This record gives sequence, C-alpha cells and structure tokens, in this order.
Amino acid sequence: MSYRFADRTKMFKTSAIREIAGMIQKKGSDVISFAGGNPFEHYFPHEEIKRAFEKVFESGKGSLQYGMTPGFMPLRELISERVKSKGISAKPEEILLTTGSQQAIDLFSRIMLSPNDVVLTENPTFLAAVQAFESYEAKVVGVSGDKDGMDPEDLEKKLKQHQPKFIYVVPTFSNPEGKVWSEERRRALLELAYKYNTLVLEDDPYGDIQFHEEETYTPIAAMDEQKSQVVYTGSFSKTVVPSLRIGWVTGPAPVLAYMSQIKEAADLMSSPLNQQALYYLMTEMDLDAHIRMLTKQYYQHMSVMQDYLKTLDGDLVSWNEPKGGMFLWANVHESINTTELLAKILDHGVAYIPGAPFYVENPQQNTLRLNFTHSSPEKIKIGMERLTAAFLQSLK
Amino acid sequence: MSYRFADRTKMFKTSAIREIAGMIQKKGSDVISFAGGNPFEHYFPHEEIKRAFEKVFESGKGSLQYGMTPGFMPLRELISERVKSKGISAKPEEILLTTGSQQAIDLFSRIMLSPNDVVLTENPTFLAAVQAFESYEAKVVGVSGDKDGMDPEDLEKKLKQHQPKFIYVVPTFSNPEGKVWSEERRRALLELAYKYNTLVLEDDPYGDIQFHEEETYTPIAAMDEQKSQVVYTGSFSKTVVPSLRIGWVTGPAPVLAYMSQIKEAADLMSSPLNQQALYYLMTEMDLDAHIRMLTKQYYQHMSVMQDYLKTLDGDLVSWNEPKGGMFLWANVHESINTTELLAKILDHGVAYIPGAPFYVENPQQNTLRLNFTHSSPEKIKIGMERLTAAFLQSLK
Repeated sequence: MSYRFADRTKMFKTSAIREIAGMIQKKGSDVISFAGGNPFEHYFPHEEIKRAFEKVFESGKGSLQYGMTPGFMPLRELISERVKSKGISAKPEEILLTTGSQQAIDLFSRIMLSPNDVVLTENPTFLAAVQAFESYEAKVVGVSGDKDGMDPEDLEKKLKQHQPKFIYVVPTFSNPEGKVWSEERRRALLELAYKYNTLVLEDDPYGDIQFHEEETYTPIAAMDEQKSQVVYTGSFSKTVVPSLRIGWVTGPAPVLAYMSQIKEAADLMSSPLNQQALYYLMTEMDLDAHIRMLTKQYYQHMSVMQDYLKTLDGDLVSWNEPKGGMFLWANVHESINTTELLAKILDHGVAYIPGAPFYVENPQQNTLRLNFTHSSPEKIKIGMERLTAAFLQSLK
Repeated sequence: MSYRFADRTKMFKTSAIREIAGMIQKKGSDVISFAGGNPFEHYFPHEEIKRAFEKVFESGKGSLQYGMTPGFMPLRELISERVKSKGISAKPEEILLTTGSQQAIDLFSRIMLSPNDVVLTENPTFLAAVQAFESYEAKVVGVSGDKDGMDPEDLEKKLKQHQPKFIYVVPTFSNPEGKVWSEERRRALLELAYKYNTLVLEDDPYGDIQFHEEETYTPIAAMDEQKSQVVYTGSFSKTVVPSLRIGWVTGPAPVLAYMSQIKEAADLMSSPLNQQALYYLMTEMDLDAHIRMLTKQYYQHMSVMQDYLKTLDGDLVSWNEPKGGMFLWANVHESINTTELLAKILDHGVAYIPGAPFYVENPQQNTLRLNFTHSSPEKIKIGMERLTAAFLQSLK
C-alpha cells in the first residue's frame, strides 16, 4: 500500500553522522574512533549508581509506581540548587525533567515552531538539534561567528530579516567546535534577543566539564534577570552516566507550562525510577568532586590528543585548544576534503567525524571533529599516531 | 514579553481527568479513589526488579553507556517472541522500544498527522491518545459502537466522509469502557482499513490482564497477514511496573523506519539501563506466571467492586462485567449528571471519574469509570460501601 505520511516527514533527515558511524563500525573493532560523543566508561560512578538503586528499592514498592509528569520533586530541588550556583534562579517547580536534554530541545521546538518558522543557530552547530527543528518544518539559518561566539552584527541582521522564533546556542564548550563564548558576546546576544522579542535556547550539556577553574563562563540564562528570554537545558549524561537518560530544562513560566503539558502527550513522564536513583546518588555522593575528577582526566585526554597534533605542520592543521567539553575541532589545509580523506584514514585504523555535516549552510570541507572523552589516553596515543601518520601519508 | 508560540499550542488541552485528580487530592488522603489508572503496588515484582538491576550492574560499566535509538536488542528479541504467542509476526528489528506506549502513540501521530487530518476513534476513548492527536492539529472524529466494538456501518460512512489518516482503537479491555471487541468486529475493521487504505493504531496495554483464560481475543495486528495495515503497541507498565517506562511498537516497515528516525530527534533513546533490567527480569522470572497471578487478583478486585454495584437497583446503575483490564464502566440513571454528582460523592470520601471527558463528541453525562486495580480488595469494600451509600443518599 502507499502510506500517506505527514508533510513533516519530508523534512526528516538521516543523520550524516550516524551514517559515518555505520561506516566506521563496518571497518571492525580495531578502529580507534574519535568520531562519537560518548563519555569514557571507566570513569562511570558504577558502584555509587548501584547503591543509589539499592536505596530506591529499599524505599519500598511505591518507588516503582507512576510519578508526576514534570518529574521527581526532590531531584528537581537538587537541580534548582545546582543551577543557583551557576547564577540561575529557578525554583524546583520551574525545573522540568526530560529524557536527556534532547527531549528538552524537542519539546521546546514543538511548542514554538510552525512550518516555515525560522531558528537561528551557530554554523556549524549540534546536528540533533537541527534534526528536531527541521522535523517541525522550520527553517534553520546559520549566523556567522568566530572563536568568541556569534557575530552580533550578523545576528542582528538575521533577526531583522527572519524574525526567528528563537536562537539556539551552545555557548560553553560547544558541539562540534568545542569553543566557549566570551562574556561580551553572551551579553550582546541577550540584548538582541530582548530587542527583537526572540527567545534563546541555551543548551549546556558540557558546561560542567571546565578545564580551567579560574575562568568564569556565565550562562546566558544567568544574565536574563527578567527570566523572560532564555530557556536553559542541561543533562546528567556527560557528568553521571548516559543510560539514566536524565536531562532537565528551565525557562519562562509560560514556556515551561506548555512544555510540561506537551510532555504529558509525548511520553507521560520520564522514568521516575531513574529520577529517584539520581536523587539518591546526588545526596550520597559528592557529584562536584566526581566532576572535578572527570574534568582533570578529560583534560589529560585532550592534552595527549593535542600533543600529537602539535607534531604536525601548522599549515596542515590548526585548532583552538578546547577549554572544556568533549571535542577538539580542527581545520586542515584548505586543499583537503575531510569527508574524502576519511575513507583513507579508516584504512589506518582510526576515525574522526568530518566537519561538513555540522554546518547548516556553507559547509567547510576542510574541518573535522575529534572526540577525546570516549577513549583512554593510551588508546588516544595509538589512535593519534595512526592519525598523524595517515595525515602525512595521505598528503604526499 | 509576548511569546509567539507555535499554532499547535492552541490545540493543547488540560486533561479534564488531571483536573479531577487534583480536586480529589485536595480532599485529602482519606478519599478512596477509583479515579486513577494505576496498578496495585502490592503486586509489583519488587525483589525480582531489584535483582534484575543487580544483574545489569554486574554486567559492567558498559551497561551505563548510550545505547541504540530503537532499543536494547536482546529485549526486542524477547518481545518478538512474546508477540509471536499472540499470533503477531514481528522480527526483533521490527520492534521499536519507547518510553511507555504513550510515546509510541505520539511518535506515530507525529509521522502521520498534518493539520486538519482526521483520526477516527471509539467514543468514548483513551484521553491521552486524543491529546497527542490534537497536539498535531488533527481532528478527532468518534465512531459509534456498542459492547462488541465499532459499528462497521458508521465506520465505513466516516472512512468515506473523512478519509482519515488512521483509526485508533483499544479493542481488548479498553480504557475507559473496559470492553472487548468481538472477533467479527475486529475483522470488519481490518477489512475496511484495507478497503480505504487507512492505517490502524491498535493500542493494547491491557490485553494481558485477561480474566477468562478460555476465551481468545485475537489482536487485529495478528489478522493483518500482509503486515501492511496495523501498527500495534504494548506496554510493561501494567504487567511489570510503570516506573521503568517501557513500551514498544511494531508495524509496517516504512512506518517503523520513520518512527525510529523521529525518535532520534525526540529523545535520542529511552533508558538503556531500564531496558537491560527488564531483559534480565524477563529471563530470570516467569513473567507469564506473574501475569496469571495479577489477573487472578485483579479479577477478585473487580468482583468485590461489582458485588456492591449489584446491590443497587438496575434502573439506577448498569454495566457490562469487565472481562479483563483495569476499569469498570457504568451507566447511571439518565437523570444523573456524574460530573455534578462527584462533588457530593467526594464528601463521602470516595471518588470516581465522570465519563464525559472521555468522549470526543456527544458526551454521555450519566457515565462513570471505576478503576479496580489501584486499591486493595479491603479498600475497595470500604470505598464501595461509601459509594453505594452516597449514590442512594444523593438520589433521595
């Protein structure tokens, strides 16, 4: 039979990254992959999570029942305290728990976007967010920028031109670029958002993985003193474990009210069991100490990776040292197409993700993203030896 | 500021049932509520779930990592086997795991429904499904029916008139009516679905709670030998526990492909941890024996409830004995408005859900739904004593 699907399915895209991941997997397990975005399993607080679940089970059978759509209140209270330390004021009732921050992005898109609405994003930007925006038949327009964030001039031009529904940004250790916006650019964005009555979706899954303690990266949501403009989402997938699938979102009350209402239709609620376990984990374990450990370790991972890149000619490869997060973004010589190069590189038993798929327009073919969190430093060494050798050989 | 929400938000409805639940909660914990749809906690396989999670943690840190969007393959294999016993052929790759069956309903709606598309449903029907359909700006049209299911004549008339995208049905122990469709009506529906090139969404969260072992209720999906017409969704919320939030869906390959693709944008994946735990639970525990125990117990609950109703005059209240599921649906004398009556009944310390909110059109004001699974038989006795007394008193 011929199926009569919704119009929006025409906008569905297969993730280019998933296709590349499939290509890498086919090559077999010998390949050291810097392509994904997974945290390193070795650092997972395995014992602590096990004990947290024991606590939940000890608390009785009621813990296995349905919960409330917005989530387990004691966990929302803890998150409210955590964001306060970042300068964001959000009462527990103003925290909505989601199935990862991906669901927060999706639910927000669902209440905001009608067909042909515009979303402004960085270029390149996080691909799965673009997938969500486009699935509601929105148009995604890239704003140009540099290492400090979006260019306010180009942003203002595009705000005027497109009257977007919102601006999507990952200002702290972004995916894919791993960059961090300057304070000035953050403020400029917020001022323009006020001026043009446009919401900001600030996605902050990596913010806690900050390599330089002495630096301060104020969330844009913390600058939004009127609490009218910024929807802020975070996740425990990178700092605790991904498999709990716990993210959360806060923002202006009318936005949260709609998001909570539509979450009811979307999946009724995320797992109350996992939310309770995370609550016990956070009360029994020093999560901040764990994050400090993680950050210290990931800095070592990044340094190992970077040291190998430094052996290459600056004309061949250039990058800005990541100040946190999970990714190192590199430019290679403009004569090189990293998508074409990947096939050759794979033959050397190592993989990266070409940068092109992350662009919403004008893809830069000479870019690539390297993940430094998923592999051990030892594996990173081997992988980078292969990568640098393959680079040099491919360019002969 | 004034927020520019998506057009679809105009269609969002606050659940009338949730409002009533709030009203009941305000009355305090002395109220015995037959209003909700929760299973009885006392029967939860608490120890078995605890052990299942221990198994997951024993399996190593990898169990805490990201998984695949369609879900944990070994669990999909077990579900494939389970549905085979119901006559449905679905390979493991044809099973998509979701966050409860609510997410299956939502994802299917998302790939099918453009604004003004029509969905045909029973009338009354499951409210949260209607919420999902309407959130995509679809129109929901009720098909008339009787105790055996939808009236094929009215169904054909409405298929011609509306060319709906799909027909949504809960043919086995429906919510709210607790009824079970006859084999003949199931076949008639499927034939009409073929004839008018319309998909069927068969929602079967209650099918396993079947009171009379000797009877056979063939899923419509099992009759769809071409596997072209029926999307079938099930859940472990009623048979294991709700807090795992594990549902699943199977159906024609092009439908599943789109649903899996959009799940990636919706929440990337449901909790891989919970999926692994359910897998171990199902391999270590005899789930069918557990379901038989549940069924036997819930039959007792239902019988206790029904025995009290039998003390009332047949002119005052009538119902069809539920053959399974979680709900007893009753008609009271046509002079009685059950929404108005509820306030008085609540003063007696007992609650039900008026039937009117479940109707998509022509609400019958003299109907009500009683849940018999959430309370113990002892509590049901007390509640029903209050309810029958309150009924008689209110009608003086």
